[in-house]
Amino acid sequence: MSPWNDRFSERMAHVRASEIRELLKLLDQPDILSFAGGIPDPALFPTERIAALYAQVLADAGPQALQYSVSEGLPVLRRWIAARMTLDGVPCDEGNIVITAGSQQALDLIGKLFLTRGDTVLAERPTYMGALGAFNAYEPAYGDLDAEVPVGARLAYVVPDFANPSGRTMPRREREALLARAEAHDLVLVEDAAYRELRFAGTDEPSLLALDVARSGGIENARTLYCGTFSKTLSPALRLGWVCAPRPVIDKLVLLKQGCDLHVSTINQMVAARVVAEGYDAHLERLRGHYRERASAMQTALARHMPLGVSWSKPQGGMFVWLTVPEGLDGAQLLEAALAEERVAFVPGAPFFAVEPQANTLRLSYSLPGPADIDEGVRRLARVIEARLAYAGSNAARATTGRA
Amino acid sequence: MSPWNDRFSERMAHVRASEIRELLKLLDQPDILSFAGGIPDPALFPTERIAALYAQVLADAGPQALQYSVSEGLPVLRRWIAARMTLDGVPCDEGNIVITAGSQQALDLIGKLFLTRGDTVLAERPTYMGALGAFNAYEPAYGDLDAEVPVGARLAYVVPDFANPSGRTMPRREREALLARAEAHDLVLVEDAAYRELRFAGTDEPSLLALDVARSGGIENARTLYCGTFSKTLSPALRLGWVCAPRPVIDKLVLLKQGCDLHVSTINQMVAARVVAEGYDAHLERLRGHYRERASAMQTALARHMPLGVSWSKPQGGMFVWLTVPEGLDGAQLLEAALAEERVAFVPGAPFFAVEPQANTLRLSYSLPGPADIDEGVRRLARVIEARLAYAGSNAARATTGRA
Repeated sequence: MSPWNDRFSERMAHVRASEIRELLKLLDQPDILSFAGGIPDPALFPTERIAALYAQVLADAGPQALQYSVSEGLPVLRRWIAARMTLDGVPCDEGNIVITAGSQQALDLIGKLFLTRGDTVLAERPTYMGALGAFNAYEPAYGDLDAEVPVGARLAYVVPDFANPSGRTMPRREREALLARAEAHDLVLVEDAAYRELRFAGTDEPSLLALDVARSGGIENARTLYCGTFSKTLSPALRLGWVCAPRPVIDKLVLLKQGCDLHVSTINQMVAARVVAEGYDAHLERLRGHYRERASAMQTALARHMPLGVSWSKPQGGMFVWLTVPEGLDGAQLLEAALAEERVAFVPGAPFFAVEPQANTLRLSYSLPGPADIDEGVRRLARVIEARLAYAGSNAARATTGRA
Repeated sequence: MSPWNDRFSERMAHVRASEIRELLKLLDQPDILSFAGGIPDPALFPTERIAALYAQVLADAGPQALQYSVSEGLPVLRRWIAARMTLDGVPCDEGNIVITAGSQQALDLIGKLFLTRGDTVLAERPTYMGALGAFNAYEPAYGDLDAEVPVGARLAYVVPDFANPSGRTMPRREREALLARAEAHDLVLVEDAAYRELRFAGTDEPSLLALDVARSGGIENARTLYCGTFSKTLSPALRLGWVCAPRPVIDKLVLLKQGCDLHVSTINQMVAARVVAEGYDAHLERLRGHYRERASAMQTALARHMPLGVSWSKPQGGMFVWLTVPEGLDGAQLLEAALAEERVAFVPGAPFFAVEPQANTLRLSYSLPGPADIDEGVRRLARVIEARLAYAGSNAARATTGRA
């Protein structure tokens, strides 16, 4: 008799699959024109350089590249990151950096350190669903970052630059106001900077952490924990991200990291340290040009094809456009129709809300399809929306005139 | 004003550094003869093969080796592991396998799935301190695996083969009895098989999971979660381990893995899948020969140098010997003296106990030093112990004769 059918399965009931993630797996079919995947274009990975550097690292470091290493991450990489953070307005050193398995692990470790069941996490509407996935393990309640701060609020999570999924960038005034509120309510601020390096239009806003440091007098006084990553710029497969924060926080995160998985792959850290040392900014410029072209193609296509009543964000960086369709339409139902009728895919907006989802929203990613596919995909999606609007309109007309 | 000095630091107080891990960092000095590190000899890593395979994988898979991949791990690697588990008495398929960042992450995910504050974890005395590090994040209580099973016991953690730190292998009868007790008390059994492939003497015992499967009729009925790793056999730096368990457990662990860090490095998984496909058993034979020689050198040295009253384990595999010194002596004090007087290092035994540490114990690893260094190191350690015994003896004599 399997113990998993009854008693043991109860013990595991608190872990639930995300419907949307299950759904996304089904979209990976060659004949679907997809705006769903929020992943970088692999054509942009410096694959040949990375291949050469694996060989170099193994030739130079030999078996030490394959040995255990320290939980906080390799000093050479932590120093490079600290120097880069310093250039971005956050004077700090390697003691303020811990290397994590992507910024996803940063969010998990921060949740593990700060959240207890019932604590309230404040998040944007919409917010990154992967952050909810990380925090959910610690069973917090959620509140709206823009509403009044509830009692029991401990932590606020934000993606200030070219957010996933909204594509929105938080203006400087709003960043300052958020810091003031965080101070007033004694919140820990988590800044997810996953897309920060991918600005292709407009001018840089200072990071929340940079503003915090300027305001509080130094990183050791800051309440902002900055989560960075190489996943959107170099390669997600290396699983390399970091937290930049006051030392007492880093020290605790390192201890948690040790208990979770000891450390990030030694050889991958060594390779990344060499890649970034030899021209990261030139590489980023190439990425920005690429995403600028794709984003522009999508804005053009949306303006050309979308019916009246549909609105969308105009990102200055990153990979995402957030689409709002007229009330009464539902992103999940639209996806079903879009797949069946037009073989086009996207992510419905509802799963990006911690609470009270706004159903008439969708996320479109322009990172993978080329400009022609973007135009064609948006045209198809517009047809699906138009058909639903016409149907809703004729229903409304019938309702108005009293015809059944 | 830094919020980290008061309010925020209270929120982090539940995460504490392990004194012993802090101490171990200090032992990494070239003039110390060390039996402390529980890490594999890097000379045994297939470094050249791995270098060739990174090049091959990047040539064959191109940028896809650097892209995101699925949270459960690459099918090719999971299938290879399932086939190997099947050969080891556990018929299963890739649906029973999740790839983790070393077996350390397996322990963290299992803790996250099954432990709530106050649940009791049963552990051997001594047990692997890294497992305590993983479980501690979920604030369990601990009980002795060999004592009566307390109310609230949820999970038992064991290292049945060549345990870290004891070097002990659990005899078959004891494994059967443990399974019967687990069934009677409805425990989840966690089998840490980190050293299982490193048997250099004696004959294989069936794994707990294999016995469980034989007893319960199939892996879907088993209550044992088997944690394997490539860290001791291929390379720890790849951060590759796995859990083999009933599908409902794997499914939940995959969801947790997704929230924790999305997935293990794609390229590292691809490389490992190729390394193991081309002659893993021949590679293991080489490792076993190496550790057999080192283990034998240590047994010879211990027999030659240790004073009466000192006893030690005789491992048939793995990397560790467990030393018990006469009561009244303390492992931590011995380490201090050993470092100061003889420049020899080891790990005191106390941190390997979840509760009620037995202070007169130490762990010796023979994985790194050569036979000559093993003899010299044991000779020095014996001198330190003898000196303490003589001092204790003269004190005892003084006490007995009433002289102050």
